Amino acid sequence: MANGTGPQAALRRRNLSRVLHAVATGDKSRAAVAAEVGLTRATVSTLVDDLIAAGLVSELGAQRPGTVGRPGTALALSARGPAGIGAEVGVDHLAACVVDLRGTVRARATVESRNRGRAAAQTLGELEGLVRQVTEEAVGLGLRPAGLTVAVPGLVGRDHHTVLRAPNLGWKDERTTLTVENEANLGALAELWLSGGETPPGASGTPGTPGTPETPGAPTARTPLTDFIHVSAEIGIGAALVINGGLFRGARGFAGELGHVPVYPDGPRCSCGARGCLEQYAGEEAVLRAAGIAPELPGRLKALRTAAADDDAPALAALEAAGRALGIALSGAVNLLDPQAVVLGGPLSELAPWLLPGVRRELGERVTGGGALVVESRLGRDGVLLGAAYSAIRAVLDDPSEWTAR
Amino acid sequence: MANGTGPQAALRRRNLSRVLHAVATGDKSRAAVAAEVGLTRATVSTLVDDLIAAGLVSELGAQRPGTVGRPGTALALSARGPAGIGAEVGVDHLAACVVDLRGTVRARATVESRNRGRAAAQTLGELEGLVRQVTEEAVGLGLRPAGLTVAVPGLVGRDHHTVLRAPNLGWKDERTTLTVENEANLGALAELWLSGGETPPGASGTPGTPGTPETPGAPTARTPLTDFIHVSAEIGIGAALVINGGLFRGARGFAGELGHVPVYPDGPRCSCGARGCLEQYAGEEAVLRAAGIAPELPGRLKALRTAAADDDAPALAALEAAGRALGIALSGAVNLLDPQAVVLGGPLSELAPWLLPGVRRELGERVTGGGALVVESRLGRDGVLLGAAYSAIRAVLDDPSEWTAR
Repeated sequence: MANGTGPQAALRRRNLSRVLHAVATGDKSRAAVAAEVGLTRATVSTLVDDLIAAGLVSELGAQRPGTVGRPGTALALSARGPAGIGAEVGVDHLAACVVDLRGTVRARATVESRNRGRAAAQTLGELEGLVRQVTEEAVGLGLRPAGLTVAVPGLVGRDHHTVLRAPNLGWKDERTTLTVENEANLGALAELWLSGGETPPGASGTPGTPGTPETPGAPTARTPLTDFIHVSAEIGIGAALVINGGLFRGARGFAGELGHVPVYPDGPRCSCGARGCLEQYAGEEAVLRAAGIAPELPGRLKALRTAAADDDAPALAALEAAGRALGIALSGAVNLLDPQAVVLGGPLSELAPWLLPGVRRELGERVTGGGALVVESRLGRDGVLLGAAYSAIRAVLDDPSEWTAR
Repeated sequence: MANGTGPQAALRRRNLSRVLHAVATGDKSRAAVAAEVGLTRATVSTLVDDLIAAGLVSELGAQRPGTVGRPGTALALSARGPAGIGAEVGVDHLAACVVDLRGTVRARATVESRNRGRAAAQTLGELEGLVRQVTEEAVGLGLRPAGLTVAVPGLVGRDHHTVLRAPNLGWKDERTTLTVENEANLGALAELWLSGGETPPGASGTPGTPGTPETPGAPTARTPLTDFIHVSAEIGIGAALVINGGLFRGARGFAGELGHVPVYPDGPRCSCGARGCLEQYAGEEAVLRAAGIAPELPGRLKALRTAAADDDAPALAALEAAGRALGIALSGAVNLLDPQAVVLGGPLSELAPWLLPGVRRELGERVTGGGALVVESRLGRDGVLLGAAYSAIRAVLDDPSEWTAR
């Protein structure tokens, strides 16, 4: 079996991960897994036994009535094994959830919280209370916490323990022992997971179809997306670039700063110091002001949606202008990157009916080769939190050896 | 030796390529090659013998005086083996060159030619004459033609035999038996080659330092660039994105259309149908008009450079505005991609002293995290042609088995 690329332990780690990824892409027998990963049935059976013993995989029983014994038994990811914990710091809320290996949300909590200008230590302290609450709930269900990722609306350092800037929280160079990640990146990861476009480690070729997470809308058949721009927004506007089935972070980890792409270069001054950034036209605060809604109002986005649905002229004009600005900035991005699609996610996606016409019109006029596919995320504002939980699950799938060794 | 990933022939092909890439990254002994690629000395020696017999590798003689025999003999890429042929269709010129495996230009020809609005068949026919001329010259020097790539200022189809649009030539959906590629992509490939940032096939880890091509300025030590935006311009403005040491082409092959990134969204109508594209401010024609120089004038770019050097006010203002527009468009690109650097290449690079201040000022004001490294290509306007020749050389390095089998 040795292929000369490293010691036995590394090989075993890799093979365990390959088997687990194969199981994750759909319930199948040991024989089917062996055929998929290109290992012998005996090797696969040993690895599967280890994964079952570790509680990562479970047997569903005979696949076809009439056949007996292990070879025909379908395997699935366990609903009681390791679980990913996701948490989210929003400007006005905190959230935490636990997701099992199959992608099902098993525990969840959200609280309103005024986090703008509040000390990071205080905000994160409150968040940790929420995390403890959902974790205890999940442990009670037989799940084992496998890792926590905290989504933040800001730039995160390469160490994933520093929030370099989160202007809408008032954070600058905040260090934490928690693992943090930019919210737009996590929203994109969730979308990638759902679309089945992600590339497993060491794999080349067809991406798999992962387990079906609990989602607001049932997933429909769609070409797996491997190259897309994921736009996400709460107060700021962030984007994440997915290239070749993986997150593209850039040289310093700052890729995806769509909110600071210039739209009208001589426009109003932005919080970043430049003029005419997208955020000045399509950021939540800019849109609310233009619509005549106080940006501090609780439930302000709902108020904006209601006003738009009621054909309120200032609200419609504000959303039309925001859609146009978003379309202009995205036209530049699409001309540069030529992605398969632009995915609109986060709270912004709830305003899609009013934003998308302007976005699509600008893309249609400005993109070389004629327009771009724009789709709404099926995860909506849940994408960020699910993506945070999923990043821990992904770590288990990529290296299950830590769990089988226990 | 078998590692189970495929038949012997595929393994031998891959190992030949790994050995050849190792030789390409600097003269070294068989023992050093074996250590680098992780194969036994015996295997490497057999592969090297095949590569020498095929004329792809040559022995430089004993590395250290006092040591004798093959193990101490340095290997280098052959100066008489396969050679890449590059050709270029410009709006006002045609060019062809032959480059050997070491990266040295061995034959070269350029002619002035009014190609705007001329039938593609006629232009390509004249180009083929030029290609024949340099090829005959190279064959006389003992080189063997290994492939031809033609650089065009336009969008190229995925088959690399169709020019979908080249508005400045007046081409639309032109099919050819020649292999064509977008000029900005080839300029980026040349820069990647020169910087040593490219990723050899199947390799992970440190990129190599390839042979030294003949360049206007001597290469200096620089961090290998693996992620950069290469801007290149003749009449239009194109860019190429290099990501993880390779060219990023996008879903339809249209990535890098920097010239149609919106700069002033309500600005003048562009040839693409949209308004306010970068090309309307920093394209050669726009700059020449603003400087009061006839865009049809032969030697017009030289005239512009001379005027700028003479502190001619309209020329300076035109270049200042162009630099500003380029900086605005690049700010968006850098905020999205967070590259290691922006490389300015093509004929535009000859105007760098007047363009760069505006580019750098806009990037400094608009880029999240503060500015971006902007460097001039050391290849200048030669980059595109060298990149075209190099793409054939790269094909030899990636699969030398076709040559060893002869």
